[in-house]
Amino acid sequence: METINYLLGYEDLKIIQDNECFCFSLDSVLLPNFVTINKSCSNILDIGCGNAPIPLILTKRTSAKITGVEIQKNIFELAKESVKINKLENQINIINDDINNFYLNQETDIFDVITCNPPYFKLTEESNLNDSNFKTIARHEKTLTLDQIFKIAKKLLKNNGNIAIVNRPERLVEIIEIMKQNNIEPKKVQFVYPKKNKDSNILLIEGTKNGKPGIKILPPLYAHDENGNYTNEITKYFS
Amino acid sequence: METINYLLGYEDLKIIQDNECFCFSLDSVLLPNFVTINKSCSNILDIGCGNAPIPLILTKRTSAKITGVEIQKNIFELAKESVKINKLENQINIINDDINNFYLNQETDIFDVITCNPPYFKLTEESNLNDSNFKTIARHEKTLTLDQIFKIAKKLLKNNGNIAIVNRPERLVEIIEIMKQNNIEPKKVQFVYPKKNKDSNILLIEGTKNGKPGIKILPPLYAHDENGNYTNEITKYFS
Repeated sequence: METINYLLGYEDLKIIQDNECFCFSLDSVLLPNFVTINKSCSNILDIGCGNAPIPLILTKRTSAKITGVEIQKNIFELAKESVKINKLENQINIINDDINNFYLNQETDIFDVITCNPPYFKLTEESNLNDSNFKTIARHEKTLTLDQIFKIAKKLLKNNGNIAIVNRPERLVEIIEIMKQNNIEPKKVQFVYPKKNKDSNILLIEGTKNGKPGIKILPPLYAHDENGNYTNEITKYFS
Repeated sequence: METINYLLGYEDLKIIQDNECFCFSLDSVLLPNFVTINKSCSNILDIGCGNAPIPLILTKRTSAKITGVEIQKNIFELAKESVKINKLENQINIINDDINNFYLNQETDIFDVITCNPPYFKLTEESNLNDSNFKTIARHEKTLTLDQIFKIAKKLLKNNGNIAIVNRPERLVEIIEIMKQNNIEPKKVQFVYPKKNKDSNILLIEGTKNGKPGIKILPPLYAHDENGNYTNEITKYFS
């Protein structure tokens, strides 16, 4: 069932959701607040944009043109509608395509920034794929692997452009290796912890195309306080 | 001038220091508390042991035999004395040698655990770096690089043995790459932050020889509270 929600934490941003297939998550709110946006930024790509939470939130930080690419037709349509009800058609362009196809038809070195909240889970025989196909594609590396994401970034990012992704901390080593293989230098990391005294469960990582070595580890974020409520640092974005 | 101090936080561990050449630091207290020590651990190596804070603190966690190797004769002598006044000669053996020489003469696969608080620049924290050769060796990669440390670990660690080091977070990417090159899988990381809302300034990282991929990011540690005092989580070790 389709519902219109406000993008939580943003009183003037609305998003259309469909609980049967796709809802935005905390990840999608953290990433557009984490990514570095320089003043000169004019062109942003969001890979696998879903119902467009990342493009929508990015409009609060930049007037750069934002392209969202979404493979699934019905989710693409939710994204288009969300852009329209926010009257952001002039800034956000949503494209219904497989990013692996889309990027082949693009010039090199065209984006200042790429964001991606990719499928987290490697597709294995044990993967539980009984859910709807919408969820399978959004959650598993069925159509988009980390290798593909950074290969795409290597082509499409301008020199010194940034790509920021969200993922599971368990995959930090693999992500760093793949970034390096694609001449993307990891430059900034932030770990999100579910609450105090727990291991991190969300990794935010940004790299720079042809950047110099040297990484910064930002202050940690805690999602919940002792009572299970969102912390103030999170409710800034998401409440 | 030589002085005998209690190893802070440990009422019964004494350490001999010489302010002219070498004092142990917060790093040396964090590392032996961070490293994984399994019940079956019988043989530990501390590379570049200085005046032996890491071997001394490790005796609180394990009855394994601990070998400390220190290149500098006068610091080696402080370490020997510290072991003696704590009556730990049966557990800790301090050797005066260059680790790059020491490891060539060892069998392969002999240590369960290796620890190392290696030389690294603290340019922003140190005002006079070149005042003595002792400090230069202890703080710069003059005699021991990261490449050498992990090459040594590759030879000397038992299969599935662990190496834990402390370093600057800025070097995380480089450290992960060098670990991987030496078949040491990064498995556990903890970031230490000087205080809230600051970037991390100390990295603790552990890897397992021939370990399976997948890394854990432990809860963050803060060194100081808002008033500049050590936090409770630190004073547990160091007060």
